[in-house]
Amino acid sequence: MSLVVAVRGWDPAPWLARFRRLAPPGLAVVDGREPFDATAIRWAAVWKPEPGFLAGLPNLRAVFNLGAGVDALLGDPTLPEVPVARIVDPDLTARMTEWVVMHVLMHHRRVATLAEAQARAEWLTLYQPAAGAVRVGIMGLGVLGRDAAAVLRRLGFRVAGWSRTPQEVPGIDSFAGTAGLDAFLGATDILVVLLPATPETRGILRRDLFARLGRGAHMGGPVLINAGRGSLQVEADILAALDDGTLGAASLDVFEHEPLPTASPLWRHPRVFVSPHAAADSDPEALVAQIVDGIAAVERGEPLPHRVDRGRGY
Amino acid sequence: MSLVVAVRGWDPAPWLARFRRLAPPGLAVVDGREPFDATAIRWAAVWKPEPGFLAGLPNLRAVFNLGAGVDALLGDPTLPEVPVARIVDPDLTARMTEWVVMHVLMHHRRVATLAEAQARAEWLTLYQPAAGAVRVGIMGLGVLGRDAAAVLRRLGFRVAGWSRTPQEVPGIDSFAGTAGLDAFLGATDILVVLLPATPETRGILRRDLFARLGRGAHMGGPVLINAGRGSLQVEADILAALDDGTLGAASLDVFEHEPLPTASPLWRHPRVFVSPHAAADSDPEALVAQIVDGIAAVERGEPLPHRVDRGRGY
Ligand SMILES: NC(=O)c1ccc[n+]([C@@H]2O[C@H](COP(=O)([O-])OP(=O)(O)OC[C@H]3O[C@@H](n4cnc5c(N)ncnc54)[C@H](OP(=O)(O)O)[C@@H]3O)[C@@H](O)[C@H]2O)c1
Ligand SMILES: NC(=O)c1ccc[n+]([C@@H]2O[C@H](COP(=O)([O-])OP(=O)(O)OC[C@H]3O[C@@H](n4cnc5c(N)ncnc54)[C@H](OP(=O)(O)O)[C@@H]3O)[C@@H](O)[C@H]2O)c1
Repeated sequence: MSLVVAVRGWDPAPWLARFRRLAPPGLAVVDGREPFDATAIRWAAVWKPEPGFLAGLPNLRAVFNLGAGVDALLGDPTLPEVPVARIVDPDLTARMTEWVVMHVLMHHRRVATLAEAQARAEWLTLYQPAAGAVRVGIMGLGVLGRDAAAVLRRLGFRVAGWSRTPQEVPGIDSFAGTAGLDAFLGATDILVVLLPATPETRGILRRDLFARLGRGAHMGGPVLINAGRGSLQVEADILAALDDGTLGAASLDVFEHEPLPTASPLWRHPRVFVSPHAAADSDPEALVAQIVDGIAAVERGEPLPHRVDRGRGY
Repeated sequence: MSLVVAVRGWDPAPWLARFRRLAPPGLAVVDGREPFDATAIRWAAVWKPEPGFLAGLPNLRAVFNLGAGVDALLGDPTLPEVPVARIVDPDLTARMTEWVVMHVLMHHRRVATLAEAQARAEWLTLYQPAAGAVRVGIMGLGVLGRDAAAVLRRLGFRVAGWSRTPQEVPGIDSFAGTAGLDAFLGATDILVVLLPATPETRGILRRDLFARLGRGAHMGGPVLINAGRGSLQVEADILAALDDGTLGAASLDVFEHEPLPTASPLWRHPRVFVSPHAAADSDPEALVAQIVDGIAAVERGEPLPHRVDRGRGY
């Protein structure tokens, strides 16, 4: 009974070493780059595997995704009909909350404006509204969106959330689906995006959406903070919206093309913070331990933890 | 029975208007700049009043300080022996927590380094430790220090505190007095200072203290964040410590001289965030309402709320 490790774009060696260290005696760990007996493979731990790779494993029981988004994996039309598990890791969640809270505060407290004043040695007194006068809207009220929402609430912000299905989150105004989108956007000064990339969410962050946001008055316009996926955003629209005042500023951790091409005007825009897809790395040790536990759970007859709903795409 | 308003450096007119709006019928509000009957004054609401001004009020029952620190007021040797009240305001506390949390995160997540990389259009991948690997030490575990500590804990940081007398704060390692200072500093990567200015704390932030801090490894050295008072810090020592690596970076909201003189090298230091004494403004409306309530409490025979201990200086 074997687990195959297949990652592209990352060095597989440390992943193999971790799995070999933590695997129980009965579980052989196989390097997907070497020749192996495909019929022996029950489990696969993958990141952007070669399209078709998983289709060649006839006895596969589950796939564990080693990165946070399953969009790349589900995009392979030959992916066999086996359960897919995604990452849910308290350490990753905490890192994302750090990143989101920091960027919300940096816009609310106008760090960019103050840095420009500092460069001129100017003691700049700005009118600073309380957090309670600022509305943060979070698109995606999943594991990540809920945790960021809780800390933003603790800091005093007015927090709303938007999801596909109605979600109850204490202290947060919650909106759902296309029907709830207008009301949600109109009540949002700072938009935080923690949606997954799915066929439904592709390109959702575009001009007509920005135009429906609240005023974000003290920030020169509403602010966009995206740490979901680059495919959610239309970068030409973000730049145009920043330039005509539809948006006041942006913090982007994800991009249409990564690494962000040197020629992109986003690098040089004075009201954009570029973050190199580093909002929330996962802790590989914790992840491998979770996968080993997940395999044991399935072998005991329990359901696969954190199973992706392939129909809805996340 | 009258209240006199005496502020210097600020425009007194809006303060007078607020007091007149909120004062109960029996309480006359007097402008300290105009001639008035000194014997009628029972209460004074002040910010840095002319030295000797309060000594001329023979029937004064209490002084309310309109700014956060009482150091300027207590520094007047002619201040009569009446109770002095300080500001404790949830809105002010929330603003300070925003500021502290933002600056801790900006150093931990290396915003300055990433901004430099952005200016070069460089997609910079940095090793990012989890908050749980970073130790934040808070000097001053009062109203402000405790609230910031609670949010930093929620974000996952290891938090310690230092105070004059031993304080029990759930989840926080607490140290007290000179005897506890070394152990506290040695276990601190990011030092947050929320001490009052008193004769004991003057100049405490100097070279020998910085040299006792922990490593702050991923930030190029330990970080100093001061929002207490400028008189706590020796700016020449901060600059020298930044330049020889004893400190990795600093965020300063307060300065030896305010506004910070244009010639100060702090303005131009690449590892210093200068903030124009704006970490936490207080909400004047809330403050005036509190003072009116405080007067009523004393008249009912209750103790003056938020009374300063003049012996210890805060
Ligand atoms: N930048 C980084 O470093 C980084 C790191 C980790 C994750 N991420 C990204 O963050 C995403 C979210 O992670 P998570 O763990 O919070 O996911 P999750 O728990 O699956 O939550 C996803 C949320 O998005 C909502 N949603 C999905 N499709 C929607 C639609 N069409 N319309 C409205 N709402 C929709 C879901 O609504 P329901 O509640 O109704 O299901 C849910 O609230 C990941 O998919 C990944 O792309 C980025
Ligand atoms: N930058 C701004 O915008 C701004 C705004 C508001 C306030 N502030 C400053 O913040 C300061 C703190 O405010 P707060 O409301 O938190 O004050 P607080 O409630 O009076 O707390 C003061 C804390 O400092 C500790 N302390 C005082 N002297 C000490 C000493 N010699 N050694 C060790 N610890 C000492 C106290 O110890 P004990 O617990 O043992 O008493 C207490 O924990 C104010 O005094 C003001 O200067 C700045």
